[in-house]
Amino acid sequence: MSTQATTGRLIGVGTGPGDPELLTLKAVRALAEADVVAHFAKRRSNGNARAIVEGHIRPGTAELPLHYPVTIEIDKDHADYKAQILAFYEESAAQVAEHLAAGRTVAVLSEGDPLFYGSYMHLHVRLAHRFPTEVIPGVTAMSGCWSATGEPIVQGDDVLTVLPGTMGEAELARRLADTDAAVIMKVGRNLPKIRRALAASNRLEKAIYVERGTMANGASMRLAEKPDDDAPYFSIILVAGWENRPGERASGVVV
Amino acid sequence: MSTQATTGRLIGVGTGPGDPELLTLKAVRALAEADVVAHFAKRRSNGNARAIVEGHIRPGTAELPLHYPVTIEIDKDHADYKAQILAFYEESAAQVAEHLAAGRTVAVLSEGDPLFYGSYMHLHVRLAHRFPTEVIPGVTAMSGCWSATGEPIVQGDDVLTVLPGTMGEAELARRLADTDAAVIMKVGRNLPKIRRALAASNRLEKAIYVERGTMANGASMRLAEKPDDDAPYFSIILVAGWENRPGERASGVVV
Repeated sequence: MSTQATTGRLIGVGTGPGDPELLTLKAVRALAEADVVAHFAKRRSNGNARAIVEGHIRPGTAELPLHYPVTIEIDKDHADYKAQILAFYEESAAQVAEHLAAGRTVAVLSEGDPLFYGSYMHLHVRLAHRFPTEVIPGVTAMSGCWSATGEPIVQGDDVLTVLPGTMGEAELARRLADTDAAVIMKVGRNLPKIRRALAASNRLEKAIYVERGTMANGASMRLAEKPDDDAPYFSIILVAGWENRPGERASGVVV
Repeated sequence: MSTQATTGRLIGVGTGPGDPELLTLKAVRALAEADVVAHFAKRRSNGNARAIVEGHIRPGTAELPLHYPVTIEIDKDHADYKAQILAFYEESAAQVAEHLAAGRTVAVLSEGDPLFYGSYMHLHVRLAHRFPTEVIPGVTAMSGCWSATGEPIVQGDDVLTVLPGTMGEAELARRLADTDAAVIMKVGRNLPKIRRALAASNRLEKAIYVERGTMANGASMRLAEKPDDDAPYFSIILVAGWENRPGERASGVVV
C-alpha cells in the first residue's frame, strides 16, 4: 500500500486532430495537473501534439521529449529498423517508468486518440500493467476530417472500414468494394495506387481527399477533381456510406 | 449580403461518449454562444446528450427538444415506421430552419461524434446547403470504450471494421474473419448471435464486452467470461488488432 501511495500515474492524453479547441476538458485538466509532460517527436521537431497543447502546460512543468532515432535512411521492413525502433520504445518506457516510480504523474501526449493508431500505445503496453494508468480519449483525425468537410460518413447499419493506404492495390480494391463507407489513412505517395483501387471498386466518384483536416491551412476536394498526386503522408481519403436512404440525401459540404 | 448577415448558423455539436469532461473546448464555447440549443430525445426523456452538457448552457438560452414519435410498437422495416420517422425529421428541420432564418445560431447536440452514426446528420443533410453550417467533432462512443478498458485497438497497418450487431450471422462471421480489429455496435438482443459469429471466426477469445463505456456505472469484461446474454442496446464489443508485433504485447487492462 505504501508503494501504491507514492507511485505516479501514467496518463495517455489524446490531443485531438490539430485544432487546439478540440482538446477535451479532461485533457486540459490532466495537463494542468501533470508533473511531467512527455511526447514523441521526430528529431529537431517538437511534434504536432506538443504544438496543440501549447498554452495548457503550467510554466515550470517538466517536459520529456522522446525523439525517434534517425531511421529515415533504413527501409521500414528492414530488421535494423525494427530493432532500432523497439530499442527506442524500450528506452522511452524506461525513462517514463523512472518518473512514475518516483511518484510523478506523467501525461503522454498523443495526437488524435491514444489507442487508435497512436504512438502512446507503445508506452501503454509496456507500463500499464506496472503503474496506475488512465487513457483520455481524443477526437480522431478522421472525425476531424469528415467534420471539416461536412461529410456524413456513416448512418444506421452502415459498415465502416478503416484502411491503410500502404495496402496492396488488389486487396484495397477488394475491401473498398465490400464496405458501405471507408477511410483510407497514410495516403502520401500511395495516392496513385489508391486512385486506381477506388476506380476499380467504383468508389472514385464518392471519394473526398482531405489534407490537414482541422488545421488553419486545411483543404479538401473530390479526389476525382484533384489534378495531381501530391499528398502529404497524413492526408486522408473519405468514402461516405449512407446511400439509398429513402427521402434523404447525403449532401457533403466540401470546404 | 444582407440576408447572409442576418442568417443564423447551424452547429452540430459532438458531446462525446458520456463523461461531461470529454466535451471539447470548442463544444463548450459553441454552447455558451448559442441562441438555441436543440437535441433529439425519446418522448418523456431529455436524452443523454442533454444530460452531458448540463452546466454548460447559459441560463435563459432557448431550448428545442425534438422528441421522436412513438414508434416503438411498429417494426423498423415497416413502411409506416419509415414514413413517420421521415416526417419527423422534416418537421424537426423546419423548426430549426425557422430559428436560423430569424438570425439565431442553433447548436444541435449529438452524442459522440455528429457525423458518425449521429442523429444530427438528419438535420445536416436537410439544412447544410441552405445555411452557414459548422460541425464540431466529438469523441466517439467506441473511443470512450477502448480507452476505458485500456485496449489498444489498432496500430500500424491494422484494418479496423465497424459493424452493426444487427447484421446476419454468416456475414458478421465472414467480416470478423477478414479484419485485424473490429468494433461491433448495437449489441443488445443480438448478443447470442454475435457470440456465435465471434466463435465461428475464431475471435471470441479476444472479444471484450463494454457496457456504458465512459459512465460512472460502466463495466467491461472478456465476452467469453460473461455468464449471460443480457446487454443494453448501446453496449459495444471490441476485438483488438495489433497481434504478432515482434517484441510487443497488446495487454489490455480490463476495468
